[in-house]
Amino acid sequence: MFEIERIVRLALHEDIGQCDITTQATVEKGTQARAELVAKEPFVLAGIEVAREVFLQLDGQVAFEALKSDAEAIQKGEVLAWIKGGAGSLLQGERVALNLLQRMSGIATLTSQFVAAVAGTGAVIVDTRKTTPGLRALEKYSVRMGGGKNHRTSLYDGVLIKENHVAAAGGIAVAIERARSRVAHVMKIEVETRDLQEVREALEAGADIILLDNMSVAELDEAVALVDGRALTEASGGVNLETVRGIADTGVDLISVGALTHSFRAVDISMLFQ
Amino acid sequence: MFEIERIVRLALHEDIGQCDITTQATVEKGTQARAELVAKEPFVLAGIEVAREVFLQLDGQVAFEALKSDAEAIQKGEVLAWIKGGAGSLLQGERVALNLLQRMSGIATLTSQFVAAVAGTGAVIVDTRKTTPGLRALEKYSVRMGGGKNHRTSLYDGVLIKENHVAAAGGIAVAIERARSRVAHVMKIEVETRDLQEVREALEAGADIILLDNMSVAELDEAVALVDGRALTEASGGVNLETVRGIADTGVDLISVGALTHSFRAVDISMLFQ
Amino acid sequence: MFEIERIVRLALHEDIGQCDITTQATVEKGTQARAELVAKEPFVLAGIEVAREVFLQLDGQVAFEALKSDAEAIQKGEVLAWIKGGAGSLLQGERVALNLLQRMSGIATLTSQFVAAVAGTGAVIVDTRKTTPGLRALEKYSVRMGGGKNHRTSLYDGVLIKENHVAAAGGIAVAIERARSRVAHVMKIEVETRDLQEVREALEAGADIILLDNMSVAELDEAVALVDGRALTEASGGVNLETVRGIADTGVDLISVGALTHSFRAVDISMLFQ
Amino acid sequence: MFEIERIVRLALHEDIGQCDITTQATVEKGTQARAELVAKEPFVLAGIEVAREVFLQLDGQVAFEALKSDAEAIQKGEVLAWIKGGAGSLLQGERVALNLLQRMSGIATLTSQFVAAVAGTGAVIVDTRKTTPGLRALEKYSVRMGGGKNHRTSLYDGVLIKENHVAAAGGIAVAIERARSRVAHVMKIEVETRDLQEVREALEAGADIILLDNMSVAELDEAVALVDGRALTEASGGVNLETVRGIADTGVDLISVGALTHSFRAVDISMLFQ
Amino acid sequence: MFEIERIVRLALHEDIGQCDITTQATVEKGTQARAELVAKEPFVLAGIEVAREVFLQLDGQVAFEALKSDAEAIQKGEVLAWIKGGAGSLLQGERVALNLLQRMSGIATLTSQFVAAVAGTGAVIVDTRKTTPGLRALEKYSVRMGGGKNHRTSLYDGVLIKENHVAAAGGIAVAIERARSRVAHVMKIEVETRDLQEVREALEAGADIILLDNMSVAELDEAVALVDGRALTEASGGVNLETVRGIADTGVDLISVGALTHSFRAVDISMLFQ
Amino acid sequence: MFEIERIVRLALHEDIGQCDITTQATVEKGTQARAELVAKEPFVLAGIEVAREVFLQLDGQVAFEALKSDAEAIQKGEVLAWIKGGAGSLLQGERVALNLLQRMSGIATLTSQFVAAVAGTGAVIVDTRKTTPGLRALEKYSVRMGGGKNHRTSLYDGVLIKENHVAAAGGIAVAIERARSRVAHVMKIEVETRDLQEVREALEAGADIILLDNMSVAELDEAVALVDGRALTEASGGVNLETVRGIADTGVDLISVGALTHSFRAVDISMLFQ
Repeated sequence: MFEIERIVRLALHEDIGQCDITTQATVEKGTQARAELVAKEPFVLAGIEVAREVFLQLDGQVAFEALKSDAEAIQKGEVLAWIKGGAGSLLQGERVALNLLQRMSGIATLTSQFVAAVAGTGAVIVDTRKTTPGLRALEKYSVRMGGGKNHRTSLYDGVLIKENHVAAAGGIAVAIERARSRVAHVMKIEVETRDLQEVREALEAGADIILLDNMSVAELDEAVALVDGRALTEASGGVNLETVRGIADTGVDLISVGALTHSFRAVDISMLFQ
Repeated sequence: MFEIERIVRLALHEDIGQCDITTQATVEKGTQARAELVAKEPFVLAGIEVAREVFLQLDGQVAFEALKSDAEAIQKGEVLAWIKGGAGSLLQGERVALNLLQRMSGIATLTSQFVAAVAGTGAVIVDTRKTTPGLRALEKYSVRMGGGKNHRTSLYDGVLIKENHVAAAGGIAVAIERARSRVAHVMKIEVETRDLQEVREALEAGADIILLDNMSVAELDEAVALVDGRALTEASGGVNLETVRGIADTGVDLISVGALTHSFRAVDISMLFQ
Repeated sequence: MFEIERIVRLALHEDIGQCDITTQATVEKGTQARAELVAKEPFVLAGIEVAREVFLQLDGQVAFEALKSDAEAIQKGEVLAWIKGGAGSLLQGERVALNLLQRMSGIATLTSQFVAAVAGTGAVIVDTRKTTPGLRALEKYSVRMGGGKNHRTSLYDGVLIKENHVAAAGGIAVAIERARSRVAHVMKIEVETRDLQEVREALEAGADIILLDNMSVAELDEAVALVDGRALTEASGGVNLETVRGIADTGVDLISVGALTHSFRAVDISMLFQ
Repeated sequence: MFEIERIVRLALHEDIGQCDITTQATVEKGTQARAELVAKEPFVLAGIEVAREVFLQLDGQVAFEALKSDAEAIQKGEVLAWIKGGAGSLLQGERVALNLLQRMSGIATLTSQFVAAVAGTGAVIVDTRKTTPGLRALEKYSVRMGGGKNHRTSLYDGVLIKENHVAAAGGIAVAIERARSRVAHVMKIEVETRDLQEVREALEAGADIILLDNMSVAELDEAVALVDGRALTEASGGVNLETVRGIADTGVDLISVGALTHSFRAVDISMLFQ
Repeated sequence: MFEIERIVRLALHEDIGQCDITTQATVEKGTQARAELVAKEPFVLAGIEVAREVFLQLDGQVAFEALKSDAEAIQKGEVLAWIKGGAGSLLQGERVALNLLQRMSGIATLTSQFVAAVAGTGAVIVDTRKTTPGLRALEKYSVRMGGGKNHRTSLYDGVLIKENHVAAAGGIAVAIERARSRVAHVMKIEVETRDLQEVREALEAGADIILLDNMSVAELDEAVALVDGRALTEASGGVNLETVRGIADTGVDLISVGALTHSFRAVDISMLFQ
Repeated sequence: MFEIERIVRLALHEDIGQCDITTQATVEKGTQARAELVAKEPFVLAGIEVAREVFLQLDGQVAFEALKSDAEAIQKGEVLAWIKGGAGSLLQGERVALNLLQRMSGIATLTSQFVAAVAGTGAVIVDTRKTTPGLRALEKYSVRMGGGKNHRTSLYDGVLIKENHVAAAGGIAVAIERARSRVAHVMKIEVETRDLQEVREALEAGADIILLDNMSVAELDEAVALVDGRALTEASGGVNLETVRGIADTGVDLISVGALTHSFRAVDISMLFQ
């Protein structure tokens, strides 16, 4: 997670601005403090090293001891980390650390619920590009901590021919053919399809992965049977915790879930001063 | 919103990276396209100019016509804007524009629900610093579009003495006194209190605003009566769409709601190519 | 002062560019040196930690011991700090450290003279937005070190309705009313007035702070009497070390002085190699 | 002045932050305004294009017409430029534009006074590295607008062997010799001297320029006679508007004046709305 | 090529610094000029839009007309583009434009020679990560203009298990297995092998692509026969214009050539003023 | 080399992006490794501290011990440095470190060959502005490590009047005269000439350095005789390892060689894991 430093710097700059006038006005220089990060509900942890980075960027003298690791299931009331150092530094870092940790753990937690829901099927839960602008690296990391896997990271590390590319190219076959001839075969070529006819076209044109978009479970069943292992299949659209098991049972290889990063809920964590 | 340019630039850089290999591989240079942004559900709009900026940064030749304005209530099926230009530019901007627009409108929509819930009381709905790191300016703007108001933006544009500052200072009175002597009186001084005893102390020490944290409606009633207009009162903690009306009815001046920016849901908007 | 790192980095980059060819050409690698920062005149110190940052950014091996603290009154000939380390690093940091320290101390010194001039009155000396572009955080800090207080930092952390806003809004009353209805009451609303009639309007419209711009001492007297504690009063315009006492004696609460940051004189400090 | 864009962007970001809440609260969207920049005292203009950049960065629709050019002598009451456009944009740019224009013109004006004082002698007024951190490019430009010339811009575009380099190298001769052997002769080598003995050494070692530091007029006379055209001579230290003519009359080639950029006074310019 | 703006900005900043003193000193403001970019030798063009960006960033008034397109084979003496505008802008942009255009076209030209050398075989010429730091996006683009294809762009858009990863994991099989279980199958897994035994292991472990590193043509023959279409094969190491045809004739699918970006020669292009 | 930090940061960001998925997938956290940088051919070293910076930016726990210094002649098989630390950090830094080190040493090596070729003549080998965009500081440093010297770094640290400036000014004499009157004489003035007539003009106009562009050895002989020590002479154009000795023997003072930075070959260095 090479991006941590940059994101934390930006977040601190945004939150503190030129100085923390309240702390400066009320806390005497040199006052020491000790605080702990405490879980107020159960969740899957992600971002503990990001929290550490927040305090260390503010003040190299702060001691931060993580008691839990990312990907760990946390119980309500458990202490995630101890922080010790200048009271001003702890007070200034509190909000940014929590803002990041609560969101990242929220994503890991939601992901873990989807992963649990498909346990025993062969389906893999993957994320999408529907991430919060500026935080994609942290959010994709959080998906991994929750047991999911990452789909492509950005527009240049994977070929995914969507409906609109097909329209602009003039058909699935020509779009795939163009991609084949212009992109080195180190990359798989994925194509979005909306019905069985398109699945058939994609298959004939030699797609590596076929995205089955917004299909019913019945359609997915047919599509998986049609593809019959000649390409990977990925389901997307209308995926939630109620529907995901049924989708997985159709035998699709991948299920992509935009909600992992656009509809998670920040978990509840407190920073308690001792 | 002076920050728009920077945020959009960062988001595009993150999403596109070095190039969009799919578009480059499948869409012939020079292909033109026309698309519309369509509401898939009702919501309060925020971010239409941000969406415009996305496409214009990618390609100065794109024409973007907004049909709706921020703060407007949108019905399902309504068209928010038309976009016309190079098909590649439209395809590349789609995800970033939607990622921003859906989140911003989600915040405006949630805010408008809180504002509606307290209609007729004197209470004002305000936001908190619990915003997404890197996007605070856009999120605070979205709160305004939803009819809320903004609390302080960062640690240096307002004095808010929290429980931990009080602890570090050694009491509410001394904390307020220090703030008074070190901060010019162009700023109001706000103090967090947890019970009536602390409210009394804050009042005696001359606080301008008294934050009533995590109090029951009964306690809020008492606190408001105790303060009796000698300071502004702000309720926080445990505020949701079920509880907010009862809180407002106690007569508090302000109600701060962290959920506005940490527990909103992205609204559903599509970009449809014609 | 979260901005120190960024400002120092920029200043070093600007001054050194790609390398210091003189030092590189004349000083053998590994040569050690020791130097002291010496006051060549009496002043109030501001910026000693900024000077430390300059040398540490250049070379983590440099030892910097501050003998004086910011806000301290320094006598001519006193040593502010010792610096020990690679001769090249000391030579490269000298100019940037002095450029910052001399300016910051110049501001603190001038501020302390204004503060002394109003001693015993209730008036508080505050700064303005007339700061050097790029250095506002350091300059506002220096004002505090000289005993002054800070007015708003930038356009978004305070409402100050100036003559031109009044003109655009169509009158003082309507401008204040709009501000009231659009800005949360966590912020005070300040209005600029040019005569007693405007003071009266501002008062009736419920301004929290009334800026009395470019008024004579006689007018200030009348204005203060008129306001009679129902709002804070702030004098501005034509304030200098000769006039400030008379202004303070009128009983205004605040006196804002642009000269603190636009007409200070850099104090004289030398870096002497031993 | 390739740096203008960056400096203006930084200055606007610093001054406006996330939004101008006063303008937003009091001025209706779409309100148009017209203003003029007016000289409140006589001065030499510098920075009119920087002022234009301020308004154009804020709003590409603003019309800015410069009536005066940099380097021009301005009379009290003259209009420097007209600005027309959205009232909000004009109000937001006002302070930053004035902060830059007043400082730059202050430098140009002070420089022009030094240049006038030495008129008729062969001496050239040059600046130093004692500039405001972050603004060097603008300040050196302003010196040129005032009729001065620029000494080296940063540590890598000129060799200037100062007292401390000499000490570290072990003597003037060895320092010059090292510089000769390590730096291509496309650059002149300048050496600081404190007395006639050092001048002699520098001359014998083949310095191209001899800096005569803190010498009296009598010493300067002797030094110039001693050098006798075999090197350029530059006087520095103790130079002010009272002493500069006497120094110039000694026949030195260059007079470097730190005060040009560290002790100038911002000139008085107003932005008047019509 | 979303990166063009950033790279050009950096390059101009580096080359011009604070101002072009020669142009400023010798060319009168307002002087117009016209120049053409002329090929001094035959080559494959890449970067003509980058050259345009250089001049437009300097001066929005410059007219730049490209007469040739990227990927086109250029003859000695042909004119690539006309440029018309302020003489100062043309003089300032000349070196940066040529530095970029000559390098990019050098890469395209060398790539086209490799591509020509393997014509008729099925082998595809691909690049590596051995690119110039900071210019990867432009260099990979230039490879495409020369008829090559791009291998992965950076460490996160492809799995390539090299010898050292194998060593750290404890064997080819375990390394592939770990990658399979941790990375979504939207990505192909490539493994570096050094001999037939390793090829066999990689094949059994289910690698998608087998990198045959530094093998002789005889070994490549055997390896291709062994793989027999069950995975893609890629040759690397010891590839130059003499050896590449023999390597391609073994039937490998891909040949990666570090030299494309680390050992190209800048082509000769002049900017001639009329 | 103040720029190292920035360049390395950019290069790592470019190469790693959001994470190294291969290392993450195949190497267990906590695995330690030890590697050495080994010369695969003889060369002159440049950049060893840049390589150190790469690994330290990635991971402050890595130990890097340099066994060779910049400017040293290295034999094939010699170890340049040892690196010890987390296997992941070593694997992630490998390519960036080699990309920089191989290029820098390539420049130093080529420069040393030119310097050796002119040994015994008085001619100095200098570089040009034909450097790789973004890497100029490192490349100019590498030239010094190879025994060459640096010509001006960018457009503002030296006056070099080229053919096109002369054309725009209307003649060599007027161009030099303008430069004299506008630039402080701390800088030398260099003029490009194409024949003896122009050399004569430049000499009469008082140029400090005369650039003899693209002249034959016979013309250079005549030009040097004509100048006869009244100005420095610099040869440029058509300089390669075959021609440089003959050029130097004409007695020119400087020989500028664009090839040093635009036509070097990256040397071969490996990072071997133990």
